[in-house]
Amino acid sequence: MELNAIYESMQEDLGKVEDRLRSVSRVDFPNLSELLAHSLKGNGKRIRPALTLLSGKFYDYNLDYLIPMATAVELMHTATLVHDDAIDKSPVRRGRPTVNKLWGEEKAVLLGDYLFAEAGALTATTQNLRVIKRFAETLKTISSGELNQAFDAFNREQSRQQYIQRVAQKSASLFAMATESGAALSRAPEESIQILIEYGYNLGIAFQIVDDILDFIGTEEEMGKPVGSDLTQGTLTLPAILLVEYCPEDNVVKRLFSSREDQDNIELAIELVRNSSSIIQECYQVASDYREKACRNLKLLPQNDNRQALIDLADYIISRKK
Amino acid sequence: MELNAIYESMQEDLGKVEDRLRSVSRVDFPNLSELLAHSLKGNGKRIRPALTLLSGKFYDYNLDYLIPMATAVELMHTATLVHDDAIDKSPVRRGRPTVNKLWGEEKAVLLGDYLFAEAGALTATTQNLRVIKRFAETLKTISSGELNQAFDAFNREQSRQQYIQRVAQKSASLFAMATESGAALSRAPEESIQILIEYGYNLGIAFQIVDDILDFIGTEEEMGKPVGSDLTQGTLTLPAILLVEYCPEDNVVKRLFSSREDQDNIELAIELVRNSSSIIQECYQVASDYREKACRNLKLLPQNDNRQALIDLADYIISRKK
Repeated sequence: MELNAIYESMQEDLGKVEDRLRSVSRVDFPNLSELLAHSLKGNGKRIRPALTLLSGKFYDYNLDYLIPMATAVELMHTATLVHDDAIDKSPVRRGRPTVNKLWGEEKAVLLGDYLFAEAGALTATTQNLRVIKRFAETLKTISSGELNQAFDAFNREQSRQQYIQRVAQKSASLFAMATESGAALSRAPEESIQILIEYGYNLGIAFQIVDDILDFIGTEEEMGKPVGSDLTQGTLTLPAILLVEYCPEDNVVKRLFSSREDQDNIELAIELVRNSSSIIQECYQVASDYREKACRNLKLLPQNDNRQALIDLADYIISRKK
Repeated sequence: MELNAIYESMQEDLGKVEDRLRSVSRVDFPNLSELLAHSLKGNGKRIRPALTLLSGKFYDYNLDYLIPMATAVELMHTATLVHDDAIDKSPVRRGRPTVNKLWGEEKAVLLGDYLFAEAGALTATTQNLRVIKRFAETLKTISSGELNQAFDAFNREQSRQQYIQRVAQKSASLFAMATESGAALSRAPEESIQILIEYGYNLGIAFQIVDDILDFIGTEEEMGKPVGSDLTQGTLTLPAILLVEYCPEDNVVKRLFSSREDQDNIELAIELVRNSSSIIQECYQVASDYREKACRNLKLLPQNDNRQALIDLADYIISRKK
């Protein structure tokens, strides 16, 4: 199912989130305004704000809280991307030059700080202390996960468990915040909030695994960034871990992580993963298992169109090509 | 008056802030723990948490709120320093190697993010929405100020007014947050909160002006960092603005900002400022004017020892040598 079809019932509300994102860049400081507009335009899939809205639709769907919160979730996501790109010196994201490429790393770092702050300010307008605390804790978790990844760069000895833990910190925590905040702001009962947290968390892990698969098997055109960028950064993701597991002796990933930034070995590793149907298949199986976990308790939520939209979104996340 | 003497009445409570800062670095991730401990040890003067505590002492002095808030204020300050140093690639701060020097810029950026988040989490524990909103707004203001400075780097055409505006954003906003939060968390009446905001804001400007003076006339040993670092970064501060005003033709600052990182011209500019008693005197006069503004309405607050401590702190800030 296409994303547009899944979003159909909330096109109008997602439009309000877009309006709010645009209004973030209307500040009385032209340079900052330009940076904000550039970083928020993008061609993002807006999955995280959609999760906040969908999670809010089971109970008291109050847009006064949900629109700022969905916007805050997207801003936090954007802030992490802006910092990631600055740190990795990535020149391109979603087919467009990055902030660090256009304005330099220092401005990207400061813009990311501003975006975190704006996200926090919007979260505070919900006046919901649970959600405000979750926001701060999530940012702690994400930065810990990113630090974890930075300390483990070019470390060849990483287990699947370490990988999943990092993915949970880096990606799943924000998905879980998106669903928890939507549920909490619509006064869902605690059991329903927990079901939606479970959904967001597991979906976030599935999402990131697919992202990491696409970094091997996608095309630069679809992805809007170079293929194999994780290996270039020394980040060991699930396909590479499986490649090491499958051929532990004289493995190209090991060689690559010893020599670093060896373009020939990067291309060879990509080739080996692409040509191994079992590696890709196994990675998709792991992602699908998390999709199952995400959805298993949704049936306990009130029966309505959103429940189906959450399931469709989970299916989309597995089958997407970009 | 020495800082220790000013702090005398709140040594115990500042000790609790130190304990809380130490507990921040006790996390179940040794690499992060090490980074946190390094960045929070320092030899900081702890002026900002002292302001929160002092501002809280006029009314309902509740340490359950004030200790986490004072800690949050210091964490936010530390986070901005960690990011500043990463951006400026500064090797040393307060006589110790910076996080970016020891662990690289990427980890410094992520550590700063974590510190902002931890500060936000501690602020959220106060459950005070005014203070939580102020926290987020202050981070927006600080990052705007820093971006302002980054965009104006090596720009020779900057007025005193632009300088003061930048200082207000970069530094005074955090001082004002420190005093406002202390006052608001102790249930001060609104007029008292406003007096303490006015105090913090103007004191913050005075503080930064003195910092910028010391960057010219201090010693590397006292400052714990190289003299003239602002000029090296292309940041035009008040002493340099006055130097341009005093000798508009063929000015060394103008030459320096054209050629960039020209060590001879940096040394010459420092020499000229140091040898011009009128430039330094005028800068101190501007700082003193803000000190006056800071203190002018303190007499309207309840008469107690803290009132005098606030005045003594303002005097200390002007007369300090580091």
